[in-house]
Amino acid sequence: MNKPLRIIPLGGTGEIGKNMTLVEYEETAIMIDCGLMFPENDMLGIDLVIPDISYIMEAPDYLKAIFLTHGHEDHIGALRYVLPQVQAPLYATQLTRGLIEVKLREAGLLKTTTVNTIAPGDSVSVGPFTVMPFRVCHSIPDAVGLAIETPHGLVIHTGDFKFDYTPVDGRLPDFGALAEYGRRGVLALMSDSTNAEQPGYTPSERVVSEAFEAVFSQADGRVIVATFASNISRVQQVIECALKHKRRVGVVGRSMVDNVRMARDLGYLSAPDDLFVRPEEMQRLSPSQVAIVCTGTQGEPTSALVRMANREHRQVSIEPGDTVILSASAIPGNEELVHRTLDNLFLLGATVYYPRLRPVHVSGHASQEEQKMMITLTQPRYFIPVSGEYRHLVLHADLARKIGIPRENIFVIRNGRVIEFDEQGGRLGERVEGGHVLIDGLGIGDVGEVVLRDRRHLSRDGFVVVVAARDATTGELIEGPDIISRGFVFMRDAEELMEEAKELVIDALTAGHRDTVNTLVRDRLAEFLYERTRRRPMVFPVILDI
Amino acid sequence: MNKPLRIIPLGGTGEIGKNMTLVEYEETAIMIDCGLMFPENDMLGIDLVIPDISYIMEAPDYLKAIFLTHGHEDHIGALRYVLPQVQAPLYATQLTRGLIEVKLREAGLLKTTTVNTIAPGDSVSVGPFTVMPFRVCHSIPDAVGLAIETPHGLVIHTGDFKFDYTPVDGRLPDFGALAEYGRRGVLALMSDSTNAEQPGYTPSERVVSEAFEAVFSQADGRVIVATFASNISRVQQVIECALKHKRRVGVVGRSMVDNVRMARDLGYLSAPDDLFVRPEEMQRLSPSQVAIVCTGTQGEPTSALVRMANREHRQVSIEPGDTVILSASAIPGNEELVHRTLDNLFLLGATVYYPRLRPVHVSGHASQEEQKMMITLTQPRYFIPVSGEYRHLVLHADLARKIGIPRENIFVIRNGRVIEFDEQGGRLGERVEGGHVLIDGLGIGDVGEVVLRDRRHLSRDGFVVVVAARDATTGELIEGPDIISRGFVFMRDAEELMEEAKELVIDALTAGHRDTVNTLVRDRLAEFLYERTRRRPMVFPVILDI
Repeated sequence: MNKPLRIIPLGGTGEIGKNMTLVEYEETAIMIDCGLMFPENDMLGIDLVIPDISYIMEAPDYLKAIFLTHGHEDHIGALRYVLPQVQAPLYATQLTRGLIEVKLREAGLLKTTTVNTIAPGDSVSVGPFTVMPFRVCHSIPDAVGLAIETPHGLVIHTGDFKFDYTPVDGRLPDFGALAEYGRRGVLALMSDSTNAEQPGYTPSERVVSEAFEAVFSQADGRVIVATFASNISRVQQVIECALKHKRRVGVVGRSMVDNVRMARDLGYLSAPDDLFVRPEEMQRLSPSQVAIVCTGTQGEPTSALVRMANREHRQVSIEPGDTVILSASAIPGNEELVHRTLDNLFLLGATVYYPRLRPVHVSGHASQEEQKMMITLTQPRYFIPVSGEYRHLVLHADLARKIGIPRENIFVIRNGRVIEFDEQGGRLGERVEGGHVLIDGLGIGDVGEVVLRDRRHLSRDGFVVVVAARDATTGELIEGPDIISRGFVFMRDAEELMEEAKELVIDALTAGHRDTVNTLVRDRLAEFLYERTRRRPMVFPVILDI
Repeated sequence: MNKPLRIIPLGGTGEIGKNMTLVEYEETAIMIDCGLMFPENDMLGIDLVIPDISYIMEAPDYLKAIFLTHGHEDHIGALRYVLPQVQAPLYATQLTRGLIEVKLREAGLLKTTTVNTIAPGDSVSVGPFTVMPFRVCHSIPDAVGLAIETPHGLVIHTGDFKFDYTPVDGRLPDFGALAEYGRRGVLALMSDSTNAEQPGYTPSERVVSEAFEAVFSQADGRVIVATFASNISRVQQVIECALKHKRRVGVVGRSMVDNVRMARDLGYLSAPDDLFVRPEEMQRLSPSQVAIVCTGTQGEPTSALVRMANREHRQVSIEPGDTVILSASAIPGNEELVHRTLDNLFLLGATVYYPRLRPVHVSGHASQEEQKMMITLTQPRYFIPVSGEYRHLVLHADLARKIGIPRENIFVIRNGRVIEFDEQGGRLGERVEGGHVLIDGLGIGDVGEVVLRDRRHLSRDGFVVVVAARDATTGELIEGPDIISRGFVFMRDAEELMEEAKELVIDALTAGHRDTVNTLVRDRLAEFLYERTRRRPMVFPVILDI
């Protein structure tokens, strides 16, 4: 017992998304979750963001298992990038496994990956650890938290959770297990901080069913419900309303189709076979007989709902009489795209419901009273708020303090900070790599701050390249200068400006010493263009000596 | 009376911001408001957005007056761009005039502009119109709506409003005037739709005073309040708390300093002279003796609060013990910047309050019950929702219908649509230009969709320029190919890729016919780069024949 237990969040603390936490003791580590994050608006051109695992890559063999708490992208989405580098087996509940396998099949990684099914109540031994999943409620079925027996005590990671007494799948949160852990003694609790700004209790998913029911009852035409493809519970709610109101259900959008098929195969969606209708067959039904589930709640330009709103969808055009439900909140940063989609739906004459108007969505995360309940049930000695931007972690820590956790037993940390536990207790340890790895096309981590800074510059002011050829001996201009520019001015209306720019380049070419002429051309041209436009395009001279 | 009365929104309908409405009869038009809009996130590099006034420019002399309802940027901010093109005199209340004159002085337009002061209860005759401003409450003092006598009846434009029974300046909304207009008969009401999604009543500004009081009572260190520079009422609230708690007030940020000075000169801020302390003198006071008002509520990178949060402000560094109040909501699109600022303040150890935690801000716009009250007071025959994105207009129209305005008497329109009124009643008329004019540096309207599309492309994938020189007679390569690229890959790590790209260019140059070689090089290079990276940089070949 000389060695300390080490807990290291590599993602998810100080940000929303890309959850990943390491728990390590001596030569063994386990990973909890392996998620991705969607890029912030100023990460230009970036497709996805994953955690930096270079700390693990120092000794990849010590990672013995990866536990996934549930099937959302911010908990499983980085697997396709991490698995080619580490060989650890996965442990996930049945639905989570199904969602993972859809992804791994796409990435060609399914055959080389070991996936083990776990269920609440199981015990999985990994080296010095025993991992016991317990059921939690979230906006996806089959979510678990993890209780981990370690040589220094019991560690609990809640995963994403809320306490829902009327969940869609009828599976209640496991108060018994949590209370029992609390009675036995919990060394440290890592708990979901996402909603630490939200007082009170998060409403039950049942509230959404009631709101759907009200909308379905009023609707004469089609009812189109957009939600996340992974939100299997929400799809079940649509199915139940459709059955009751004698509507058939069209599933639209590739990821939605894949997930619905998988969830039905695994028994997580219950619906008669003849409920579903293929999109191309919907037109034969009267609008009052049709309900549609689709993706597009974040205003993603290529999603089904957005194509419908822009009249670009092959199978579904929004018509007056349609009712559209946006059953999700806008993720911060997506508000403009979501609002634009809503406005376009209104413009096409649809009746539109979204969370500001009706409770057609509820959060999947615990609000303050539930966060307090989790702490009170588990009675941890140490508390580590996880899953949240920095302010959420601080506010969650404030809550913990108010209900009796001593200030010195709370660790508010960001990705890459180690917390160590031994007989003396817990303390902050070293810092390891905890940054972002940016995915852009096939590139994993090759786009960094330099390329992003250039993209930001180009996005604001564009570029100007000026090309000229000189006689290598006489220095005489023999070709050009030619100017190529994009994103700076509308070239067709800027002929005069460009002619003046060329004159200036010619002057600079004759004035400058050969070795420094590039700098001279660049500086004079940049200054001239700024004077005339108050814009600062990137300027590149190419002077060939021939 | 043969000619119709025409009402034309040139801005503010179908969007939040750049409010501008024309009211015209025969040879006379008046303009209500002349505002700007801040660019959306995908308007890359754009500084500001103003209404397109090309319709007015067809006969600029017919515009006889510009009325400004209050001093916010989305109502007065386009004056500096519009006034050089039209010669009409301005009409504004005293504080609004003060805020306008600050702007016009900066733009060198003050001397050439006629500004008339108006006050609630006045009557201003302009050709066939009599314009009567009436007092409304908003998040800035001295706001008015306008009642306009026209040859076809009374038209009311509310401006931005809410009904606040305890406004900071004690000046109550003028129910009497509104009811009197209603009794006389109102042809058409144009009313503020911003908060049409919000049920109930908007809380009074008094709520903010109470929240400030609670925060000031608890704070041991400095209290730093960020708000919009134009939010003079909010500054007055800070002043009152500071006086009560024996703190002196530092004003930080240029626009805040300008507006506070002007508002004090005009008597809109009441404070003893010795209350204020210069930023450089604050350090001599104990933190508990200091309150600061500053800008930065939208996370604007150059604002005072953001510099403080980034430890880049010359005079104020955030320290543990400081209390920061963010007294504004995030304008949609600014959430990421606002959240980042909050997180940075928390990281520096400040106690931070913002609208999700305490009511330190309330909206300045009427909620649904107040919107209904406005319609009920004025009893308009026709209703035109204005000031809002399209969904807000539709929802406001729904409200109007529910309280008895017939569907056919409601006009939900977007910028540039004419509404005509004559003895037969009201109807939709022609469409005129109602688009955006983008301001980028000195350019007004020169950046359009082509340049923006290029900027978006550059922002995602960057560019590649390849330069080579050939012998004009033999076609032999004599110089290059050289490659310049930014925003595509990190060039220092991409040497191999670039060498392969050069080989490919050399091959293409020898393979292609001289006239089509540019296209061949571009296509082959673009395809190669996409194959290797799944990115699509803009590719430009420059082949010089020498």
